Amino acid sequence: MVQTSRLLTRSLILTLALLELQGASAQEALRPVLGFTPESAARQLELESQYDSHLDADNLEEWMRYIVSKPIYTGSPHNRETAYWMVEQFESWGFEVRLDEYQVLYPTPRIRELKLIEPTSYTAQLREPTLTEDETSGIEEDRLPTFNAYSADGDVTGELVYVNYGIPSDYEELERRGISVEGKIVIARYGGSWRGIKPKVAAEHGAIGCILFSDPRDDGYFQGDVYPKGPYRMEHGVQRGSVQDMPLYPGDPLTPFVGATVDAERYTVEEAPTIMKIPVLPISYADALPLLSAMDGPVAPANWRGALPITYHLGPGPARVRLHLEFNWDLTPAYNLIAVMRGSDFPDEWVVRGNHRDGWAMGAADPTSGMVALMEEARAVGELTRTGWRPKRTIVYAGWDAEEPGLLGSTEWAEHHRDELYEKAVLYINTDGNGRGFLSAGGSHTLERVVNEVAKEVEDPQTGVSVWERSRATRAVSGDPSAQREGDLWIAPLGSGSDYTPFLQHLGIGSLNISFGGESGGGSYHSQFDSFDYYTRFGDPGFSYGVTLAKVAGRLTLRFADADVLPLRMENYTETVDRYVSEVITLADDLRAETIQHNRLVEMDAFRLQADPTQTYNPPTSKDEVPFFNFAPLQNAVERLEDASIDLDRMLGEQLSNGVLSPVRMTEINRILQKIEQAMTDTDGLPGRPWFRHTIYAPGFYTGYGVKTLPGIREAIEQREWHLVEPQMERIAAALDRVTELLRQATGGLVS
Amino acid sequence: MVQTSRLLTRSLILTLALLELQGASAQEALRPVLGFTPESAARQLELESQYDSHLDADNLEEWMRYIVSKPIYTGSPHNRETAYWMVEQFESWGFEVRLDEYQVLYPTPRIRELKLIEPTSYTAQLREPTLTEDETSGIEEDRLPTFNAYSADGDVTGELVYVNYGIPSDYEELERRGISVEGKIVIARYGGSWRGIKPKVAAEHGAIGCILFSDPRDDGYFQGDVYPKGPYRMEHGVQRGSVQDMPLYPGDPLTPFVGATVDAERYTVEEAPTIMKIPVLPISYADALPLLSAMDGPVAPANWRGALPITYHLGPGPARVRLHLEFNWDLTPAYNLIAVMRGSDFPDEWVVRGNHRDGWAMGAADPTSGMVALMEEARAVGELTRTGWRPKRTIVYAGWDAEEPGLLGSTEWAEHHRDELYEKAVLYINTDGNGRGFLSAGGSHTLERVVNEVAKEVEDPQTGVSVWERSRATRAVSGDPSAQREGDLWIAPLGSGSDYTPFLQHLGIGSLNISFGGESGGGSYHSQFDSFDYYTRFGDPGFSYGVTLAKVAGRLTLRFADADVLPLRMENYTETVDRYVSEVITLADDLRAETIQHNRLVEMDAFRLQADPTQTYNPPTSKDEVPFFNFAPLQNAVERLEDASIDLDRMLGEQLSNGVLSPVRMTEINRILQKIEQAMTDTDGLPGRPWFRHTIYAPGFYTGYGVKTLPGIREAIEQREWHLVEPQMERIAAALDRVTELLRQATGGLVS
Repeated sequence: MVQTSRLLTRSLILTLALLELQGASAQEALRPVLGFTPESAARQLELESQYDSHLDADNLEEWMRYIVSKPIYTGSPHNRETAYWMVEQFESWGFEVRLDEYQVLYPTPRIRELKLIEPTSYTAQLREPTLTEDETSGIEEDRLPTFNAYSADGDVTGELVYVNYGIPSDYEELERRGISVEGKIVIARYGGSWRGIKPKVAAEHGAIGCILFSDPRDDGYFQGDVYPKGPYRMEHGVQRGSVQDMPLYPGDPLTPFVGATVDAERYTVEEAPTIMKIPVLPISYADALPLLSAMDGPVAPANWRGALPITYHLGPGPARVRLHLEFNWDLTPAYNLIAVMRGSDFPDEWVVRGNHRDGWAMGAADPTSGMVALMEEARAVGELTRTGWRPKRTIVYAGWDAEEPGLLGSTEWAEHHRDELYEKAVLYINTDGNGRGFLSAGGSHTLERVVNEVAKEVEDPQTGVSVWERSRATRAVSGDPSAQREGDLWIAPLGSGSDYTPFLQHLGIGSLNISFGGESGGGSYHSQFDSFDYYTRFGDPGFSYGVTLAKVAGRLTLRFADADVLPLRMENYTETVDRYVSEVITLADDLRAETIQHNRLVEMDAFRLQADPTQTYNPPTSKDEVPFFNFAPLQNAVERLEDASIDLDRMLGEQLSNGVLSPVRMTEINRILQKIEQAMTDTDGLPGRPWFRHTIYAPGFYTGYGVKTLPGIREAIEQREWHLVEPQMERIAAALDRVTELLRQATGGLVS
Repeated sequence: MVQTSRLLTRSLILTLALLELQGASAQEALRPVLGFTPESAARQLELESQYDSHLDADNLEEWMRYIVSKPIYTGSPHNRETAYWMVEQFESWGFEVRLDEYQVLYPTPRIRELKLIEPTSYTAQLREPTLTEDETSGIEEDRLPTFNAYSADGDVTGELVYVNYGIPSDYEELERRGISVEGKIVIARYGGSWRGIKPKVAAEHGAIGCILFSDPRDDGYFQGDVYPKGPYRMEHGVQRGSVQDMPLYPGDPLTPFVGATVDAERYTVEEAPTIMKIPVLPISYADALPLLSAMDGPVAPANWRGALPITYHLGPGPARVRLHLEFNWDLTPAYNLIAVMRGSDFPDEWVVRGNHRDGWAMGAADPTSGMVALMEEARAVGELTRTGWRPKRTIVYAGWDAEEPGLLGSTEWAEHHRDELYEKAVLYINTDGNGRGFLSAGGSHTLERVVNEVAKEVEDPQTGVSVWERSRATRAVSGDPSAQREGDLWIAPLGSGSDYTPFLQHLGIGSLNISFGGESGGGSYHSQFDSFDYYTRFGDPGFSYGVTLAKVAGRLTLRFADADVLPLRMENYTETVDRYVSEVITLADDLRAETIQHNRLVEMDAFRLQADPTQTYNPPTSKDEVPFFNFAPLQNAVERLEDASIDLDRMLGEQLSNGVLSPVRMTEINRILQKIEQAMTDTDGLPGRPWFRHTIYAPGFYTGYGVKTLPGIREAIEQREWHLVEPQMERIAAALDRVTELLRQATGGLVS
C-alpha cells in the first residue's frame, strides 16, 4: 500500500508538471486512460510524450529515398537488399531481428500482347513512359512490366464486351439487353469492387479473357490534373495488381492453411483454386481508348459511362482483340522482417505491429510511406529503452513481403505461427501506406475506445487541433451519425486488402488498420509513378503525416504493451454488433419489400412495356419471395452480451481507478481478454470458404476488399440463399455467447 | 322525354354495334365518361372512333417536309409563307381562319465574336457544319446564326470563370473557394435550369459576359452516338435559345400585360426589365474545349464536371476572352394563326388548342412535329362536320408565332384577348413538339381524370396496349406512387416553357400540355439539325406517334367541346393540393432541421477543419433559424375544399348517370366550372412578379421552366423570406376558399 501511494504521488507530480508545460489543466491530467490505473496512466502519458520527442520526419524522408530508389517487388534484388538493410537498422535500435523466409508462387510475365484486330488495328503499348519530372520513372533495370498477378496463361481471340465494373449486377444488366460474354473477351473498368472479382465473375459467365482499364473518370483527368502536373493518373498510367481469388483465401495459392515453408505440401498450379482461370491484363486509358472506340452495339447504361470522349458501347464487337499472356510460374522467396523487443513482465504476450515492404514498382506511397513510419516508431521505441524502460509485453515489428500479390508474407507467417499467435498475440496493428489528411481507422470494435482516446491526444499537423477533432469535423460534415453526438467516433469494420486479414479474419486476433489520407490525390496507385518525386509533391510533403501516423500507431503499440488490463471496451463492441443486427434485419425487410414490388411489376408486365421496343430487351422474371426469419436467437444473444459488457466495463473502470486490482487478477483478466476476438471465430468458417473464420467481419465474396459485417447472414440474404440464414444466425449467436461467457468469467473473477 | 329515350335507344344500338365490331363487351360500352350522360357518352365514343379513322400519318410527313424545308424563325420569309399556307389548309377544312398580327421586339445578331486571347489564342467558329446526311443542314439562305435572343449588346474582355450550371447554389460553391465573378466572363453549361437564369444570376453577381455551352455529358457523346450516326449533339451543334427574364414575365419585353399591337404603349429597349443586362452567347463543345482547356485554378467540384476529356478548372483565368455581340433591335411582325370552328350550342364557350409555328432553324421536332399533329386533328375534325356534326362549343385552333424568343405570339394574343378569354375559354390544350415513346401530360389537376380516361382509350402504336398502360409501366418501374396503386396516374404541374403559360399562369384558364417522348434521343434541340432528316430517322419515323398525339389531343378537344358538363374532377385537384401542402410543410421542417444541423457544424468549426488547408476555403457562416409557421389556415381551407369537391363530384356523377340534369342546370353549372381555375389566381400576382397570378403553379424564379407548386409559400421558404410565408399562405387559402365557394354554388344549384 505504501509503495502504491508513493508511486501515485510521484507520478501525479510528474504528470502535473508535464501538463503544465503543455498548458493543460490538472483536471485533464486525471482523465482515466483505458486499461491503466491512475498512477500507471500518468507514467504512460509521460512515456508517450517522450516517445513523440524522438520522432524525426527527416528519417522518414531519408529512408524512403533509399528504399524507393529501385523496384521493390517480391523477388527483386532491391527488395532483398532493403530487407537486409532493415535488419541492420532494427538491430541498431535494440531489436532481435530475423528474416522469416517462405517459398511462394509469384508468377511474372513472359509474354504480354494485346492487339485490336478488327475492325481496325491497334497494338497496345502496355508501358508507362519516362517523365523528366519523375527521376525513377525511366528505370529499366529489374523493372516489372504492367500485369495482373495470377492471371492465367492464354492466347485468346474474341469480340469485346464492355462489362462496366464487371460485378454480378453488371451481368444482369447485360442479360436484360440480350448480351452474353460466352466466348468473348470482356473489358472492365477498375473500381466498384476489388479487381480480382472482375475476371472471376467474367469467367463464371463464360468469358475467355479479361482486360482491366483505368477509366479517367475514376482516377484520371476527370478527378483532377494528371501527373506530373497534378496527382491523378496520366493517360499511360497502369494499375498493376493481384487477381487471385482472395475472398476464397489469401496468401500463397499453393498452400492454404499452412505456411509456405520449403517442405510444405503444395497444390500444383493447376489445382490451386485461387488462380484465375482466364488471362487478365491491366491497361492504361490511352490503350483502352482505341478498343472502346471500335465497339458498337447498345449504348452502355448511364452509370457505366466513364470520362473518355466517346460513346460507351456494350458490344459484342465489332472490335475483336487478341490477348496473349504467358507467365513464369516460379516459386520465389519472400522475406518477412521480424523485429522483436521482448517484454519485461509478460514476454509471452505479443503486440504485433506490421506494414508490408514490397511494392509493385517503386512503391513510395504503397507501402513505403507506411513502412518508414513504422521504422521511425521502432527507432523511437528503441530510444525509450536507453533510459531503462522496457515494454511489459513483447513488441513484434513486422515488415511483410509479398503483400501485393495477395498478402502472402503475412498470411504464410500467420498460418505458420498459428498456435503461438493463438496463445500470445493480444493485438495486431497494421498500416499500409499513408498520406496527407484525415485519420482513417478500422478494426475490431473492442478497440474503438482506445483508438478514440489516442486520436484525441495526437495533434493534426496542419490545423493544430487533434486528429480526432479533424476526423470528427469531416465526418460530421459528411453526415456520420457518430460525429454528431457525444461519444466515440465509429471505427470502420475491416474487410480485406491488407495484412490484417490473416490475423483478424483467419486467426481472430483483435486488429487495427490505420492511415491518414484524403488530401493526397490518388492516381499513382500501383503504377511506376508511385515514386519519391510523386510522394514528396503530392503525398505527404515534409512527412508530417508520416510522423503523425507514427504517433498514433506508436501510442497504440505502447499502450497495449504496458497496459495493466488490455484496453478493450466491450460496450463499443456490443453497440456495434447491435447496429449490425439491426442492419441485417432491415436488409431482409427491404429485400422482401423490393421483391414484392419487383414481382408486382413483373405481373403488370411493366418491365416489358417500359422498354424501347426497337431495342433488344429481356424483361426480368419474378423472384422467389423473401421468407421471414427468426432473428430472436441473435437478438437474445446480443442482449446477453450487452449485460455482460456493461458489467465488465463498469467493474474494470471502477477497480482500475481505485487501484484495487492485484497483479494476479490483472493477469487472469488479461488471459481472458486475449481470447475474446478468437471467441468470435467459427472453426468451420464461412459457407464455401472455411479459411475465413470471423463471424462478425469478412471481405465480401463478391466485393473483395469491401467488408460484409455478420457475413454469414448478410451474404446469405444478399445472395438469396435463404436456407443458410438461420443456421448462420445460430453460429453467430453461439460466437456471441462464447464472448459473453468470457466476459462473465472476467467479471466473476473481479467480483469473487 | 320521348325524344330523349329514342335518342338513347338509337345511340346505344349504334355503340353496341360499333363495340362488337371492335370486340369490346357491352359492359365497357356503358362505362361512365366524365361530363357526359350515358346516352351522350355513347354518342361521343362513336364520334371519337370516327375521328380516329380520319387520321393519316402521311399527311403529317408531307406537311412537315414542306414546313421544315427552310428556316421558320419569326420574321423569316418561310415563316410567313407557311402561315399563309396554313390559312389555306384550315380554310379548306371548314374553319374560319385569320392571322392575328403583333409587332414584337425580336433582336437578331449583327456581330458575334468570341476569341480566346490569353494564354493561347483561339477564335470560336460559332457555326454548325453542312452534313451530307442532312439535306437542310447546308441551307444558307435566310439562315439565322447561333445566338441567344435578348442578350445585351456588348464588347467585353475578361478572365473566364467556370460556373457549372450558373444557378445560385453554384455561386455559393464559388464563394466557398474564394472565387468572385465580378468583372469576369462566366462560362456555364446548359442544363440544371432554364437557360435565361444563367446570365441573370451571373449579372446579379457582377459578371460582365456569359458564355453558354452544350457539354457532351448533357446531350452529346456521353448520352449516345452523335449526329449523324445517332441522335445526340455533335461537336459543333449549338443550342440557340431565348435568355429573356421569363420568370418575371414572358412575351414581348416591351409590352407586359398588354397585346403588342401596332399602337400599344411600349417600354424602350433600355427600360425593358426582361432583357438581359450582359452579353450572352451559346457555343458548341468544339468551341468550348479550347476555352475550358486554357483555364486553371481550383478543380471544379465533382458534380460540376462534364464529359470533355479535360480536368474542369474554375479559374479565374488564366484564360481571357473577348466577347463582342451586337444585335438589330427591330420590331418584327409575329403571325398567330387562329382557326375557329363555331360551336352549335355554346358558341361563346371556347376550347383553345394550340402549338407554335416558329422554330430556331428548320424546327422539325420543335415545333413542327406538334404542329402537323394539330393540323391533322383539325382536318379530321373538319371531316367530322361533313356528316352534319358540329361541336357544341367553339373550337379555336392556334398556331402561335414567336414562341421561341419567349412565348411572344401566345402571350400577346392572350393579353390582347384577356377579357374575352376570361369570359369564354373553358380549356387550353397545348402541344409543342412530339417524339416516340411515352405519354407525358401536365396541367391543371381538375383535368387529371379526363386525361386518364382519354389515355386509356388510345392505343400505343408500338406495343398495342393503351398509352395509359404504357405510361403506367414506365412510371411504375421508376417508382411513381400513382403508378403503383389503383386510380389515376398523376399529371405533372406546369411551370413554364411553352405557350400554356399566359393561359394558365396569367389568366387562370385550365390548361394541359401533352406530348410523347422518351425514346427519341435528344441532341438536336434548337440546332440546325432539328431537321426533317433527323426527325424521320430519330424522332418519330413513320409519324405513328404524331397520329397518336392527334388522337389524345383531339379526343380531349372533342370531349370538352361536346360535354354535357365540363369534365373536371375536383377530387383529383383537392388531393393534389393536399399533397402540395404536405410538401411545403415538410420543406419547412426539413429546412429547419438542416439549418440546425448546419449551425451546429458552424459552431463546431467543422467546415473549416474538414477543408484542405492548402486550398482557399471560406467556411459557410451560420444561417438564420427557420421559424415555425402557422399552416392551419391553409390546412383548413384544403379541408373545406375537400368536402365541397366530394359533394360536387358525387352529385354530378349521380345526376349525369341518371340523366336528370336539365340543359338549363347544365349551362348554369358550366358557367361556374369555367370560373374555377380563374378563382385560383390572385390579382396581385406573386411577390415581385405580378404577371404570374396562379397561386398553385408557377415557374420557379430561379429555375425558369421548372415548376414551383404553391409558389408563394414554397419560394418564400426556399429563399428564406420568412415574412412572406404567412401572408402568401393567406392568399392561397383565400384562393382555395373562392374555389370552394364556386363548388358550393354549383352543388347547391343541383340540389335546389
